[in-house]
Amino acid sequence: MKIGDPAKEYRIKAGEKLSLGKIDPGSSRLCPDGDKHSTLELFDELRNEIQVLQKTLYAQSKHRILVVIQAMDTGGKDGCVKHVFSRVDPQGIHVKSFKKPSEEDLAHDFLWRVHPHVPGNGEIVIFNRSHYEDIIAVRVKKLYDDKVWQRRYRHVVEFERMLAEEGTTIIKLFLHISKDEQKRRLESRLVNPGKHWKFNPDDLKDRARWDEFMEVYEEMIGKTSTSYAPWHVIPADKKWYRNLCVARLFRDTLKGLNLEFPEPDWDPGSIKID
Amino acid sequence: MKIGDPAKEYRIKAGEKLSLGKIDPGSSRLCPDGDKHSTLELFDELRNEIQVLQKTLYAQSKHRILVVIQAMDTGGKDGCVKHVFSRVDPQGIHVKSFKKPSEEDLAHDFLWRVHPHVPGNGEIVIFNRSHYEDIIAVRVKKLYDDKVWQRRYRHVVEFERMLAEEGTTIIKLFLHISKDEQKRRLESRLVNPGKHWKFNPDDLKDRARWDEFMEVYEEMIGKTSTSYAPWHVIPADKKWYRNLCVARLFRDTLKGLNLEFPEPDWDPGSIKID
Repeated sequence: MKIGDPAKEYRIKAGEKLSLGKIDPGSSRLCPDGDKHSTLELFDELRNEIQVLQKTLYAQSKHRILVVIQAMDTGGKDGCVKHVFSRVDPQGIHVKSFKKPSEEDLAHDFLWRVHPHVPGNGEIVIFNRSHYEDIIAVRVKKLYDDKVWQRRYRHVVEFERMLAEEGTTIIKLFLHISKDEQKRRLESRLVNPGKHWKFNPDDLKDRARWDEFMEVYEEMIGKTSTSYAPWHVIPADKKWYRNLCVARLFRDTLKGLNLEFPEPDWDPGSIKID
Repeated sequence: MKIGDPAKEYRIKAGEKLSLGKIDPGSSRLCPDGDKHSTLELFDELRNEIQVLQKTLYAQSKHRILVVIQAMDTGGKDGCVKHVFSRVDPQGIHVKSFKKPSEEDLAHDFLWRVHPHVPGNGEIVIFNRSHYEDIIAVRVKKLYDDKVWQRRYRHVVEFERMLAEEGTTIIKLFLHISKDEQKRRLESRLVNPGKHWKFNPDDLKDRARWDEFMEVYEEMIGKTSTSYAPWHVIPADKKWYRNLCVARLFRDTLKGLNLEFPEPDWDPGSIKID
């Protein structure tokens, strides 16, 4: 079993006018004959490759990797993190989840709570939600004057440019599910007491504004996808396919860095251990 | 005794080609008849006004004030902070000094160590040295490839734009001393054991490259002075004059915000304390 290149298929080019409606959340186009079971081996290989590549990334301590994940509720952010990245040495990866901003966060610029968590040399950081919430939620919920979120497009683009030019590789993922699939997932949370902790009646308020959220995501992704920090819209109704796409995308990103173990600045042959 | 408006005289307009050589570090033009003693009362008044204005700033908890101070060694950064701001309630003011970046700092983008320290609502933060060191020192000491500091012009300009648009008032000060005055101040540190802790033989290396530093400051100030985060080149050979200029500039900045105590959202007349 093989999978096509998600970067070619799902990467949003800078300046591209995005139409989310044209991307089918239920698609599995890059792996048309696959299903959950027939792709297990392929997924396993990708995860092993990621595991090996990360060791070199860490040892070389030169590159910084930032993965930004956004989605509607039940879109699969947590599942994607768990399945794609769970074999990576926890010492080299940090997952930072952004919840509702605190009072102290709100007393500062919107990037203040985000910046301390960006990756350092050799590190992988996953943002589970991110600074993009401070555009989307602020806009849909009309928390501030319109010009606040309008200006934030520029702020995130320039912030990410700075990170990239200073040495960070950035991949942004929008896990794209359908409204029907969300219904199924919310219902499954309701009937399953072990999933009750993931259900929040407030999520239904966002669901009621589904179309509005889609419009806002569409504009935001279009305006903030850049060559140095591109968005990818990943069909995410099929969990196995979503995971496969993210794993291949991430594997390819690491591979593209031409990672190498650093040359020692001493001569291994000249050292004797008594 | 009165002092003219330092914002008019010493503010560098966005896009202005700055010539540091044309600004006399020994000048006291805005207070031509003044000297240390004859201006004590004026300085005292300004500091009292600042003290009163800061109370309202803190109570209102709406505006954020960032003061960035740069200078050559002995330029008067510490003295300026001490004299101008020492009456302000310490709860509302934070001075953040930036020394040589740590290994962890260097493993991140250059704004990573700076951003957590920007002011929140109602706060005044003074940067004693700042992110500008990561352009100046990097450039003069050739620590990285030229394109690194060249790109950082844009990064600081956009970073400050973001801070400003999110609600921060930014004033940047370059305390401009002459090479002769630095000689006198370094010598006084040498002969005075109580000042030995302030002397670092390495400072002489920077002094040897005085002209180069002036060129670099000149270009940097010119390129990063903006309407929302303007630089001011303050003549600083005369300490009393430097302090007076900074105090008036700061007082005027606070005054310009039209600070007000917040209206209570309860009715003081309706509340009885038993």
